[in-house]
Amino acid sequence: MSAISFEILKPDRDTRARLGLIRTRHGDIETPYLIPVATMASVRTLGSDDLASLGVQCTLANTYHLHLEPGDELIARLGGLHRFMGFDGPLFTDSGGFQAFSLGYAREHNVSKIGNIFPQEAKSIGCEQAEEEERGFGYREPKKNDCRYKKKENLTRISDEGISFKSPSDGGWHFLNAEKSMKIQSNLGSDIIMAFDECTSPLSDYDYTKKAMLRSQAWAEESLRFHDKSQAVYGIIQGGWFEDLRLQSTQSTIAQPFEGIAIGGSLGNSKQDMHQVLDWTVPRLDEERPRHLLGIGEIDDLLECVARGIDTFDCVSPTRIARRGSLLLSPESGGSRDNKFRLNIKSSKFKADSGPIDAHCTCPTCRSLSRAYLRHLYVSRELSYFRLATIHNLYFMLRFMEDIRKSIRSGTFQQLREKWLGCS
Amino acid sequence: MSAISFEILKPDRDTRARLGLIRTRHGDIETPYLIPVATMASVRTLGSDDLASLGVQCTLANTYHLHLEPGDELIARLGGLHRFMGFDGPLFTDSGGFQAFSLGYAREHNVSKIGNIFPQEAKSIGCEQAEEEERGFGYREPKKNDCRYKKKENLTRISDEGISFKSPSDGGWHFLNAEKSMKIQSNLGSDIIMAFDECTSPLSDYDYTKKAMLRSQAWAEESLRFHDKSQAVYGIIQGGWFEDLRLQSTQSTIAQPFEGIAIGGSLGNSKQDMHQVLDWTVPRLDEERPRHLLGIGEIDDLLECVARGIDTFDCVSPTRIARRGSLLLSPESGGSRDNKFRLNIKSSKFKADSGPIDAHCTCPTCRSLSRAYLRHLYVSRELSYFRLATIHNLYFMLRFMEDIRKSIRSGTFQQLREKWLGCS
Repeated sequence: MSAISFEILKPDRDTRARLGLIRTRHGDIETPYLIPVATMASVRTLGSDDLASLGVQCTLANTYHLHLEPGDELIARLGGLHRFMGFDGPLFTDSGGFQAFSLGYAREHNVSKIGNIFPQEAKSIGCEQAEEEERGFGYREPKKNDCRYKKKENLTRISDEGISFKSPSDGGWHFLNAEKSMKIQSNLGSDIIMAFDECTSPLSDYDYTKKAMLRSQAWAEESLRFHDKSQAVYGIIQGGWFEDLRLQSTQSTIAQPFEGIAIGGSLGNSKQDMHQVLDWTVPRLDEERPRHLLGIGEIDDLLECVARGIDTFDCVSPTRIARRGSLLLSPESGGSRDNKFRLNIKSSKFKADSGPIDAHCTCPTCRSLSRAYLRHLYVSRELSYFRLATIHNLYFMLRFMEDIRKSIRSGTFQQLREKWLGCS
Repeated sequence: MSAISFEILKPDRDTRARLGLIRTRHGDIETPYLIPVATMASVRTLGSDDLASLGVQCTLANTYHLHLEPGDELIARLGGLHRFMGFDGPLFTDSGGFQAFSLGYAREHNVSKIGNIFPQEAKSIGCEQAEEEERGFGYREPKKNDCRYKKKENLTRISDEGISFKSPSDGGWHFLNAEKSMKIQSNLGSDIIMAFDECTSPLSDYDYTKKAMLRSQAWAEESLRFHDKSQAVYGIIQGGWFEDLRLQSTQSTIAQPFEGIAIGGSLGNSKQDMHQVLDWTVPRLDEERPRHLLGIGEIDDLLECVARGIDTFDCVSPTRIARRGSLLLSPESGGSRDNKFRLNIKSSKFKADSGPIDAHCTCPTCRSLSRAYLRHLYVSRELSYFRLATIHNLYFMLRFMEDIRKSIRSGTFQQLREKWLGCS
């Protein structure tokens, strides 16, 4: 018996996009969907009441983080993650394998999942090392010699047996393997879980990437053996930016009885590389299982990757950039590929701007508050800023995904894609 | 024509408490009421949507702070404070005179409005100097030699002409007098404004307190001359902890055509001293005007001061202590005078506590989240903690004031007072 079911309601006529429905014990997910991330069992700055009022369908929490604090066994004793965080919709958890990258290569190579981090783009592509700073108003604009752009100690030790992580907070070592990752995810009680894998770096060479991919393949089989059968487990395609490795990983992943397929690992050095990885892999997948792209989700990515056949995404970008002052803008309000569909609320040009963030947005923030007020809250370091900004960006993305679904339903997805990406 | 009207719906039979109704252009305020403070045009951590869903009747914003940032003229150009902060209920503003204390004597004498600050009680009686630290998770438990307990530079210069303030943020000097305070409050467009006054220190001697009181008396007359007639202005009784000065200030204040009477200034060195000040002043006030006690509002204070005839209060305590981990508890759930009706959510004893903060509370936080979850958010430095905790404490106080009003209506105020203060 399956823990979830997936149905394609309508394939797009022009692209690989598809309108779908994932059914879980905790409710349905209409796809394509961008899943808000609740790393520590909280979509940062929001309460469960906000998730309900925003109509968030599902969230994704992090296995590694919750294993350390407050502990998955404690969460199990308290009735599981749904109850703990007061959210009764479908929950995803990752496997912890991504931290092999974020605590390992990302620090050692100083890179993100799609290439090198240079100061000028660090803000936009994210920077795991800055994670700690972004709680509260600690975030500072990066400077050229910022220590965040220096290589740091790799906090992981990886072998065929599993991954040892050195916690950046307490310095203690924690060991994860497939069996343990499945046990933690079972304790959390999420609906959709990920197979344990190793996420490599864009700077990893062919030999290392192959070794890691084969290791992930073995761990995938163990994940299937050990996972809680009431949870749906997704297999993860690895192989970095090497075509034959991606093909090999795709073949081995689809051959297993996973209930969904995720695409993970390094996606090359640019967004074009990422598209290439999808073009290598997605056409080889069967139609019956839902497809998830791990850790991706800016406006242009979502359009391009939905067009390439992805059903669900998870990404901290909308909520993280909100906390740093970047608020999303629709094409009707001046958003474009050039400005990354964002305005910077810190700018003095908004000091006396009585209009809402986006005149075409109907989120609670835009309905009653002005750019001038939000800028004032940001400048005055008022904590209320974080939530009001997060609500706008999240609502904006939820509506954007809804528009994508509507356009597939009505056969106008290509026009929607053109409207957003054609204007500049 | 009056800008507000006040009606006593029912005087209590046993005490000076009274059930009342203040009518303003922006709606009514049922009294007794504790007004949530929105220093920078935001009840810290909350959005205007939260104020609406919590049923907040009115808020109080700070003239001095808003004059500096974003500027009262800008707020006027943007349509006034109601529109700026997205709140259309009645708004109070203070006069800026309190900052003569908070930026002056409070720093120089290292005191609060009711006496010396010692490390062991700094958290409970508040500490203006720590204001900056309490945004985000910067707040640290005070240590014995903490610099916050050292005397600091007095950032004010006071003369009969007015008060010069040195801004702690930009170091610039800003001058306020009665005319300017009235102009700023007019720009803000609040419904109820305060006369310009000088708030003294409990360490100020008789001669200085008298001088300041006479100065405030002159400024009161100027405030009446210069104030925007669409706003209701409250006179402020000064005189520190000197009976004859309080009586003199009371006489001169009630002789003026103020629409309400506030009691301000130093209230002695203990809560007993504060009650004494009220016993000197309130019985001399006429019944027709609403009475406001500035800056006071813990559970026991509210009961004792309502019993002494106060109608409205403003206090940052419920929201400030929430951010520092102190969550309010009703007597039914173990709250008592001894524990100040609080639990400390940081305590490890709540680590696995699946119950709500207060089993008798029906706030959105208590309805869906556990002590264990809130402790986890606090320990993990999740920003969502601040709002969820603030919502509990604010809802708790709003309900508490509602219970006070109901008890006056039903003639059971004394029993309510006994229920809360008798248990320990």
